Amino acid sequence: MLNKSLVNSLKQIVGSENVVTGRIPLFTYSYDASQFPGRPDVVVFPTTTEMVCALFHFAAEQGLNVTPRGAGTCLSGGAVASEGGIVISMNKMNRIIDINQVNRTVLVEAGVINKSIQAAAEPFGLMFAPDPASLNVSTIGGNIAENAGGIRGVKYGCTKDHVLGLEVVIPSGEVVKTGQLLSISESQIDLSYFLCGSEGTLGIVTKALLALTPINPEVVTMTAVFNDLGDAGDCVAEIIARGVTPTTMEIMDNTLIKAVEDYAKLGLPKDAEALLLLEVDGFSSELESQVPSIIEAFRKNRAKNYSIAGNEQERQALWKARRSANGALGKLKPSMVVQDVVVPRDRLAAMLRNVSALAKRYGIIIAQLAHAGDGNLHPHLLYDHRVPQEAEVIEHVCDEIFKEALAQGGTLSGEHGIGLEKVKYMPLAFSQESISYMKQLKHAFDPESHFNPGKLLP
Amino acid sequence: MLNKSLVNSLKQIVGSENVVTGRIPLFTYSYDASQFPGRPDVVVFPTTTEMVCALFHFAAEQGLNVTPRGAGTCLSGGAVASEGGIVISMNKMNRIIDINQVNRTVLVEAGVINKSIQAAAEPFGLMFAPDPASLNVSTIGGNIAENAGGIRGVKYGCTKDHVLGLEVVIPSGEVVKTGQLLSISESQIDLSYFLCGSEGTLGIVTKALLALTPINPEVVTMTAVFNDLGDAGDCVAEIIARGVTPTTMEIMDNTLIKAVEDYAKLGLPKDAEALLLLEVDGFSSELESQVPSIIEAFRKNRAKNYSIAGNEQERQALWKARRSANGALGKLKPSMVVQDVVVPRDRLAAMLRNVSALAKRYGIIIAQLAHAGDGNLHPHLLYDHRVPQEAEVIEHVCDEIFKEALAQGGTLSGEHGIGLEKVKYMPLAFSQESISYMKQLKHAFDPESHFNPGKLLP
Repeated sequence: MLNKSLVNSLKQIVGSENVVTGRIPLFTYSYDASQFPGRPDVVVFPTTTEMVCALFHFAAEQGLNVTPRGAGTCLSGGAVASEGGIVISMNKMNRIIDINQVNRTVLVEAGVINKSIQAAAEPFGLMFAPDPASLNVSTIGGNIAENAGGIRGVKYGCTKDHVLGLEVVIPSGEVVKTGQLLSISESQIDLSYFLCGSEGTLGIVTKALLALTPINPEVVTMTAVFNDLGDAGDCVAEIIARGVTPTTMEIMDNTLIKAVEDYAKLGLPKDAEALLLLEVDGFSSELESQVPSIIEAFRKNRAKNYSIAGNEQERQALWKARRSANGALGKLKPSMVVQDVVVPRDRLAAMLRNVSALAKRYGIIIAQLAHAGDGNLHPHLLYDHRVPQEAEVIEHVCDEIFKEALAQGGTLSGEHGIGLEKVKYMPLAFSQESISYMKQLKHAFDPESHFNPGKLLP
Repeated sequence: MLNKSLVNSLKQIVGSENVVTGRIPLFTYSYDASQFPGRPDVVVFPTTTEMVCALFHFAAEQGLNVTPRGAGTCLSGGAVASEGGIVISMNKMNRIIDINQVNRTVLVEAGVINKSIQAAAEPFGLMFAPDPASLNVSTIGGNIAENAGGIRGVKYGCTKDHVLGLEVVIPSGEVVKTGQLLSISESQIDLSYFLCGSEGTLGIVTKALLALTPINPEVVTMTAVFNDLGDAGDCVAEIIARGVTPTTMEIMDNTLIKAVEDYAKLGLPKDAEALLLLEVDGFSSELESQVPSIIEAFRKNRAKNYSIAGNEQERQALWKARRSANGALGKLKPSMVVQDVVVPRDRLAAMLRNVSALAKRYGIIIAQLAHAGDGNLHPHLLYDHRVPQEAEVIEHVCDEIFKEALAQGGTLSGEHGIGLEKVKYMPLAFSQESISYMKQLKHAFDPESHFNPGKLLP
């Protein structure tokens, strides 16, 4: 905890109502959605960009670490002050400043919740395409910092594909504007993309200009049941090879199907080895041409059967299976690690099979859920944290999963970030030269390494 | 020119058949498509990434400047050795290494011509979306360095939106792999986007993994004629606001229409103030829903008349008008500067009108062609370079165009780059803080400033 005079200085910058101290209140800000706690010395809530600048100058003078925080939904430890210092919560910078139908843009402050952007865009027939599972609570600042994806990612890309420009306060306390927030720009060294996915290590995004996307008029939701998990993976690859780009392709494995069915009683086939949940959006003739092609891919890859949602109610029932995953798994074991690796689409079947084999070999429960269209796997590893041996095995299996993903030509993280969780694996994925250049670039922004220290870069 | 021993060292690195010296041969490499000449001391043609590394080490030892070059179609001087030194031509690294239908990717060396990528992708029903006017000759390395756009940009984005990963040799001679070339990655500090548009100032791209896009089955090509240039601009804005995203929206002004008609005799209306050439691609019901909406926008914005191409022959005739622009204008005056500025779409009408007013005020010929859907204007300024006063006026008018674009919330360059041409205007567009950070990042890569010196950064 900071001494009283430092806290008073912070109160002068952001107002006393925007400074949180004290053991109990700070406890709330000592966690994100990862396994890594970290208690800050103080939490502040700036309400303007100028306050953020002043906070950075103050932190630099005092040699204090700075950890940016949005809604705290980060799964890799990005939002926790693992080395103490100031947590700057962006939650009170939550204005939607402007929405422009002609430019198809929305200008927001960093603390705006993803869902609020969707709600603001919808009356114009537009959406903000990135839709992470956390969208009801997570902030756009956090989405940008982690370059969040979502179930629509296979068709619409991830956050960086929809960021047109940023206002960023860099560690020196200067305000840098990038991309179209500076102006409409396709050329020049554009720092926007570079900052997306930098996990709060290069400064704090204060404003973002985001691209909005027209909402397609029609949706078809389908499911297919497979006797083999790899077949489901191959089916996803074949659908893409056929030139079809579904909005969503999610695979659930047998462990997950059984858990969800026991929990939510949706009539899922508990004997199925895999369920592929797929959605295509577009105009009627597009869907009319794509649906038969998808069904052909189901058949060719030995789907046992398939169904198409006949109406919105049936569609919601199918999605309920997907959304029930976390709740259902919580009933099996008290602790869970949600992993996040990516492989090229043509290695999906092999990776799904190999993760299943790992579960068998180590005698643990792994429920597999995958944003399969992106090659993004989320193995859910279940265990009991009160049993030390179990926690230890889980760590081993995570190691094996990372190594396997890299061996398949994949990478460490799809959308949850490196954070504290995977920083030790960075040298497995990146060459010494690449890490050294990332570090040089980090150094250009943050020579004292006070910004989100310990995260992302080893 | 380099002395014999240095030339011999270069021959040892790349082979004697891959070194060009001598006044006359070097003359060929002293120009790009801009107004800025610059004679290199030597041109080398590496055929492997290892040779590029060795060339960089050699250049560093000798303190020689390095200028990367593709096909030399750069419009802003990016490919000329304005301060001498070595030109590294990537033309002989021109292999298409792998094309993958499941991953929808193509892995190419930097010297591959854009058109060759299109040709390789087409049998799979895929395309490489960026289609700069130079696509028949320009290389993917140049497209990446300048972040090239093209007429499909309004729907499909520019080069950076389709680069998944890069192999880059940085000035230290080290090979850095970024993005998916490293592995499939949505997270991490991704240098790919940062390098797109960096104009060869941060190193040389040797390989690129590019995203391919399914080709839509149907196209509708339309033209509309307007009595007022601004109305055409407003029409473009309204089409976007209606939720329609055409593949292409090109505006030609009266000066250009008359020049093209006199030159190519296509039956264009010489009394029209503006012609909007528009294409939508998709599936039939999508086009069936969008075409009436577009026609409604034509009517609302006072289009005099419109037409729809009935078949491929009629379609090609309409495109011939667009493609004839440069040839037609060449008949009016011996010299031409093609400008390249961007404004937000809702400022398009104002910008088009203001550029016309500038032509009148200065008594010069400006033919306006615009990738209007992107807000990207290409005013063609015609003059006679043998008349010093004319050249001087053109420079003044360019100044005014840049200032006007910035005043409209736009920027200096859409797709031609900053290069030598616009480097002096950078402080008008970017704050001191932003330029200073671009310079720090440049310094992290190229501490000696030997890479494409004098370009992009003031």
